[in-house]
Amino acid sequence: MFLDAVGISDLDTRYRSHLINCLSGAKSANLVGTVDGKGNENLSLVSSVVHIGAHPPLLGMVMRPHTVPRHTLENILETKCWTVNHVNAEIFRKAHQASARYSKEQSEFASVGLQPEYLEDFFAPFVAESRIRMGLRLEQVIPIPLNRTEFLIGSIQTIEVPDSAVLEDGFVNISEAGTVAVGGLDGYFGLQPLARLSYAKPDLDLKELPMRRSDS
Amino acid sequence: MFLDAVGISDLDTRYRSHLINCLSGAKSANLVGTVDGKGNENLSLVSSVVHIGAHPPLLGMVMRPHTVPRHTLENILETKCWTVNHVNAEIFRKAHQASARYSKEQSEFASVGLQPEYLEDFFAPFVAESRIRMGLRLEQVIPIPLNRTEFLIGSIQTIEVPDSAVLEDGFVNISEAGTVAVGGLDGYFGLQPLARLSYAKPDLDLKELPMRRSDS
Repeated sequence: MFLDAVGISDLDTRYRSHLINCLSGAKSANLVGTVDGKGNENLSLVSSVVHIGAHPPLLGMVMRPHTVPRHTLENILETKCWTVNHVNAEIFRKAHQASARYSKEQSEFASVGLQPEYLEDFFAPFVAESRIRMGLRLEQVIPIPLNRTEFLIGSIQTIEVPDSAVLEDGFVNISEAGTVAVGGLDGYFGLQPLARLSYAKPDLDLKELPMRRSDS
Repeated sequence: MFLDAVGISDLDTRYRSHLINCLSGAKSANLVGTVDGKGNENLSLVSSVVHIGAHPPLLGMVMRPHTVPRHTLENILETKCWTVNHVNAEIFRKAHQASARYSKEQSEFASVGLQPEYLEDFFAPFVAESRIRMGLRLEQVIPIPLNRTEFLIGSIQTIEVPDSAVLEDGFVNISEAGTVAVGGLDGYFGLQPLARLSYAKPDLDLKELPMRRSDS
């Protein structure tokens, strides 16, 4: 199938949503946990979490405040914090259900059957069933006028990762932790390790690096 | 492993790079093709392409102009266009090699053994060996002062996807096209279909949708 700009704009709206959502490739599958000042917890499935940098440790995510209920965004703007919890193969159906439009008083945690968990003194709830989890503090909100979305940037304040998935050099084998990927609006994929490759330099052959801990 | 903000900032720099780069989850694996006004082609591996919206069709990507040679960014600013080409399992080693720091006169295409291909009248080169490919036009450059990166937003002008991977409703089964995911700085994963799930609504059970074409 080959489409030019006219062909793209002529597509049926729902067909185009499915198609365009698939084009970025594998998407991260994360549950974002928030709470408002009154203690109402919220959980939403976000497929746009993206790495911004390691020094300082920053993640970004695209929020669509004008097409979905904005509880997550409201809570983040109110409390300045949120959690990011990897979706794994055991909970992806519950995670998908969390994308339904529940009212603000209905906690998605209870509605879909996931447990909120509070770690140390971090204000927002983590997902107990997730194995790779971070607590983030809001650093910047960047409006994208092109389609009235907002790009949120947070700094990573806490990290929890299973020891068994962390290699000696800091690499995390996310497939060991069961992490899944999203394709498009509603497709879920497991991750099958292919290879880790050495740092690329001109005129130097790549070597394979271990993907699992030497003691596993 | 549990780390708080102090624990994170105390990590060794390279260890921290590997760790933080893994935390966003599965990352899209794309080759970005550009060319300058003199015809010097450039190819770079980008793991931060993210869906921004379908109406209009927009993709974003994070560029790190201050830590890597900025040929890709320079070419985009000069020509206002680039291509996004999914990395598949057959070319991921060549794609990784394209992340080496070649000089501006050395084309990564020739250096790593991938073919540039020009489609219709689109100005930037596509990767012949990639099966899901898009041509983008620059819409906005958003500086992120927090770590001196830039967030580029482009509108999708052309789309090429194998018919065999496109379902009746527009969903693209990216695993059918061999698309891979990146984990961290250097880990590659194939995609294993788990399920497609119906649109989630409160108090309605999810159904599984087909992930392959009915005629395949």
